[in-house]
Amino acid sequence: MSSMTTTSPHGFKVAMLIYPGMTLLDMAGPQNLWGFHAQIFLVWEKPGAVITDTGVSIRASHGFDDCPTEVDILCVPGGFGTWDVLDNEAALSFLRRIGGGARYVTSVCTGSIILAAAGLLEGYKATTHWSTYPILEALGVEGVRARVITDRNRITGGGVTAGIDFGLAVLAELVGEDAAKTTQLMLEYDPAPPFDAGSPERAGEEMTTAVMSLLQDDLSQKALPAVQGVLRRRQTTIA
Amino acid sequence: MSSMTTTSPHGFKVAMLIYPGMTLLDMAGPQNLWGFHAQIFLVWEKPGAVITDTGVSIRASHGFDDCPTEVDILCVPGGFGTWDVLDNEAALSFLRRIGGGARYVTSVCTGSIILAAAGLLEGYKATTHWSTYPILEALGVEGVRARVITDRNRITGGGVTAGIDFGLAVLAELVGEDAAKTTQLMLEYDPAPPFDAGSPERAGEEMTTAVMSLLQDDLSQKALPAVQGVLRRRQTTIA
Repeated sequence: MSSMTTTSPHGFKVAMLIYPGMTLLDMAGPQNLWGFHAQIFLVWEKPGAVITDTGVSIRASHGFDDCPTEVDILCVPGGFGTWDVLDNEAALSFLRRIGGGARYVTSVCTGSIILAAAGLLEGYKATTHWSTYPILEALGVEGVRARVITDRNRITGGGVTAGIDFGLAVLAELVGEDAAKTTQLMLEYDPAPPFDAGSPERAGEEMTTAVMSLLQDDLSQKALPAVQGVLRRRQTTIA
Repeated sequence: MSSMTTTSPHGFKVAMLIYPGMTLLDMAGPQNLWGFHAQIFLVWEKPGAVITDTGVSIRASHGFDDCPTEVDILCVPGGFGTWDVLDNEAALSFLRRIGGGARYVTSVCTGSIILAAAGLLEGYKATTHWSTYPILEALGVEGVRARVITDRNRITGGGVTAGIDFGLAVLAELVGEDAAKTTQLMLEYDPAPPFDAGSPERAGEEMTTAVMSLLQDDLSQKALPAVQGVLRRRQTTIA
């Protein structure tokens, strides 16, 4: 078992941002896939507890100041806490610093919106959670509806569970298709959803409208002001 | 957002066992699906840090002695740490106590082997990770190869990522198909694996043999003695 943990000889290095209000599954998909092949740093302001949007307390292994700077992958998960990170200059500055040297700059779900706010997706295509394309585009990034989008060394995954498809694609890129398939078999990723409602197209208009109305308060009261803040600071920097 | 956390008016209650060497994704699938509808207790010996088999530190919110005893769901995830739990009489006794009163007794991956060791699957059909059917059967449980098996109030999921399919099935059972579909849409669960190697049948004999050889040491050196211990104690109790 110890041979399958972070001491793997095939080890690549990952810095994964974690933050309050992050969605656990956004992070757990890639972390669990990569964890058998990589050394993964879970990074927030300082080492210690971070609470996800469904109430799980996860420990940041590293802070912004002690995270190793040379990594193969920078990865940012999404979640309801995304909007607070857009205002967090220390977090954005950490991402710019690590992202500048990383071989791959990646995200799951609304994590791409955080990358965009940090200026790391300028001139790249990217994907995000299906409900948030207008936000990604407001930040000047061309959004593409897909499970995984690879544009040069930017690899972004769609909403939440897309992180598993994304994680496999990244693994194939870094350690080869055979290692990715072996990991897929190990994690028995042969999905068989009991219902067919995993995208707006499949769920239909009524259900999509219902979910959008659940998300609407969060989008108008938190996302919109946060994006306006990013755009305002960007203009100030340019001027 | 606060309306979507553990204070949901639709709240059901879940006790989820977490333990050292647990597989993060086994737990994160159902936790993230249910977390918008339920109050979820993450339980180990006492409140505090538990390290998963890919090195993530998660906090147990409750210990065996302070976990609420009346829950709708008992759920046990799997992982490389499974075998140590089979020897842990305090954990098995906790599971028997909570499982006795739970509306549903459930598991993901090798979590069913822990339930079996606790005597909670006697006379039930169940599923587990594809590599561990002989172990489940050695403990006297009829194993069925499937993503999700429902046998009366026992609902078990297959390996790791099957926890998402399982979690949706359980959610439909508890709060209805519409709520399950809404959650599926929210989590964008419209899987599109980049490779087709998620089961022994799909991965083929060569790759399956390669993964089994990776798992073999763990199975022979840890799983086998642990199962023999369970069977020995069972005979002693009967005699």
